[in-house]
Amino acid sequence: MQIATTVAEAKHITRAWKREGQTIGLVPTMGYLHEGHASLIERARRENDRVVVSVFLNPIQFAPTEDLDRYPRDFDRDCKLCEEIGADLVFHPDPAEMYHDPHAYVNIDLLSDTMDGAARPIHFKGVCTVVSKLFNITQPDNAYFGQKDAQQLAIVKKFVEDLNFDVKVNGCPIVREPDGLAKSSRNTYLSPEERAAAPVLFRAVQRGREIIAPNMKASELEAQMKAVLAEEPLADTEYVTAVDALTMQPVETIDRNVLVAMAVRIGTTRLIDNFSYELPRA
Amino acid sequence: MQIATTVAEAKHITRAWKREGQTIGLVPTMGYLHEGHASLIERARRENDRVVVSVFLNPIQFAPTEDLDRYPRDFDRDCKLCEEIGADLVFHPDPAEMYHDPHAYVNIDLLSDTMDGAARPIHFKGVCTVVSKLFNITQPDNAYFGQKDAQQLAIVKKFVEDLNFDVKVNGCPIVREPDGLAKSSRNTYLSPEERAAAPVLFRAVQRGREIIAPNMKASELEAQMKAVLAEEPLADTEYVTAVDALTMQPVETIDRNVLVAMAVRIGTTRLIDNFSYELPRA
Repeated sequence: MQIATTVAEAKHITRAWKREGQTIGLVPTMGYLHEGHASLIERARRENDRVVVSVFLNPIQFAPTEDLDRYPRDFDRDCKLCEEIGADLVFHPDPAEMYHDPHAYVNIDLLSDTMDGAARPIHFKGVCTVVSKLFNITQPDNAYFGQKDAQQLAIVKKFVEDLNFDVKVNGCPIVREPDGLAKSSRNTYLSPEERAAAPVLFRAVQRGREIIAPNMKASELEAQMKAVLAEEPLADTEYVTAVDALTMQPVETIDRNVLVAMAVRIGTTRLIDNFSYELPRA
Repeated sequence: MQIATTVAEAKHITRAWKREGQTIGLVPTMGYLHEGHASLIERARRENDRVVVSVFLNPIQFAPTEDLDRYPRDFDRDCKLCEEIGADLVFHPDPAEMYHDPHAYVNIDLLSDTMDGAARPIHFKGVCTVVSKLFNITQPDNAYFGQKDAQQLAIVKKFVEDLNFDVKVNGCPIVREPDGLAKSSRNTYLSPEERAAAPVLFRAVQRGREIIAPNMKASELEAQMKAVLAEEPLADTEYVTAVDALTMQPVETIDRNVLVAMAVRIGTTRLIDNFSYELPRA
């Protein structure tokens, strides 16, 4: 497995693969890899000749008030995991290598106006920009993103389509702890007491899955899920929302394919979870 | 010479060339080609195995008040010119093929805040977005832009660098009529009387070139160029500005490499012209 820390090295390695006609799968990550990332890398390994994992804690998707400084890091452990799964290249640039006096950016309207985009106004501009850069640097045939970050996945799919990037964007299922908590690098922030409280998000997802039905009022669905979250004293709900699966705009009734997503603070840690619902065909 | 009207066709043709290891030169145009465009296509022909000319009147770089509807078109004549010079592919999509419910975009700050960006607030967002799309669709090794649109050229170079596009951006000299008027599709808007007045822009460029010198006050340079423009009763000067060649920000003194650019209305027709000045090395 090779490790590249400069854009030039990463381009050089991936361009040689392209010239040989090899397919490339990219798994963009911010590091501190867990089983969720591992599932993405494993799938990339099965579906491509070459696998690139980017490990880059992208500063421009964090607001100054957010957790960039305390975000966990363990690059040696990340490399071991990538090597075990059989990645060919880990791309690990530092922020100065990725951003020299940057002025250009990629962004998206509508899909970024709701949920995490409303709560984190610069977040998706930073995501769209870094993912575009990673696509241009590594020229993947396939890219893999977790469905835990469902709005991010919808946004990446849409900007790839709108800007004609030659990349297939693949969403992969949420990987969970035995008690249902979605795997996340941010779970390390939780105290033991908070960690015990955190599966309340999954219980709200389960409640939502049980009761969702065609033509249900979204407000009724959201209220029942919020009631589950309210049973946990450590949980402070930021949003629970049913949105159109493509546009990320709130729906009034469950009359199309939807994403039902939530953000909840457990102590100071902001956790997200979601499920997708496809309307049965008539 | 092939003509593609869909993104899928253009990708299919250019991807086959890439697989064969052929280099591709792209000349993005809005059509109604003149000798300025011809010089770009000729240079692309000399420097690449394959030449793509895009002919696409990009609606998203025009404000509703601007001249999209009256912009001149003659696709048959454009194709003849491309074929004569030896282009391999003309990409001529319609707006609906390029934009299906678009929400993602590419944009740039700082460089787009001045001059044409100040006068035309959505213009460079539309340019960055369509050029990014054309790069992704045709995957050129080289792209060719005229120095007449000098701010556009600086912006494209910067977004290519910032977003790591694998394209070399080449600026090509302004092509002029015998009386000095820079070639432009918009020159067709001019009445005979206005056409006779229009070379005043070039006379202002010439005056600027004669008097510019290291450590000159930019205000003095601009005033002398504006005085030339003021001699022509049909000319209404929008701006004459000396800016840093890289950042497009106004300078106070000529103490670095600069672009000196102007926009002038002749009747209702907005014309632009410019020259670049490199500071002599100490």
